[in-house]
Amino acid sequence: MKNEVIVKSSAAVRAMPIGAGKGTSCSVLIGPGEAPNFALRKFVMEPGGGMPRHTNKVEHEQYILKGGAEVGIGGETYQVKEGDVVFIPEGVPHWYKADGEAGFEFLCIVPNKPDTIEILDTGC
Amino acid sequence: MKNEVIVKSSAAVRAMPIGAGKGTSCSVLIGPGEAPNFALRKFVMEPGGGMPRHTNKVEHEQYILKGGAEVGIGGETYQVKEGDVVFIPEGVPHWYKADGEAGFEFLCIVPNKPDTIEILDTGC
Repeated sequence: MKNEVIVKSSAAVRAMPIGAGKGTSCSVLIGPGEAPNFALRKFVMEPGGGMPRHTNKVEHEQYILKGGAEVGIGGETYQVKEGDVVFIPEGVPHWYKADGEAGFEFLCIVPNKPDTIEILDTGC
Repeated sequence: MKNEVIVKSSAAVRAMPIGAGKGTSCSVLIGPGEAPNFALRKFVMEPGGGMPRHTNKVEHEQYILKGGAEVGIGGETYQVKEGDVVFIPEGVPHWYKADGEAGFEFLCIVPNKPDTIEILDTGC
């Protein structure tokens, strides 16, 4: 773990497509090899994109940067938009459906702990 | 620690002035009593506001939301703007001077560990 000063543009970080999602990519802005306790990632979902219902072994702290989405967490569905804050405890099922026109961009911070994504709705 | 789902607007969170700063306020969006590992805070600095050179006992992961600033970290000075990412390791001296016209807004994530702010330049 390097633990060195970082100052950079998020636009310079390569976005990687998320296979389990639709029109969804992730940029690791500060990764687990760069900082001791948590990782800062940026997700971009194209209009109409999203992620199916799934669980993670780690909690998510999120801040909505642009656009909006319908987000399901546990048994509830929420409409979120720029400036909103979301906390999803570890193990709670959740899904995203990005706004059909504006798309959806958000930061998602996770602890530097092992994680797995379990997809709950396989669609078959 | 509650560890319950949170969905809210950051604008609804009360901003508290930072005594050690100038024209600087902080909103705790997700606090140490609400999530297990780290806290999500939003700082707003008025045009020309800022924080003097100081250290913290915890690292900072930051994302610039609006405006810009001159930020000193260790022996270097950086110009940062919307979309930039900053990592300040624990114990490294740093300071902020917000843009004189646009001001400066950023997220700052810290681990849920004891922290103290030590001001290095007292101005007297």
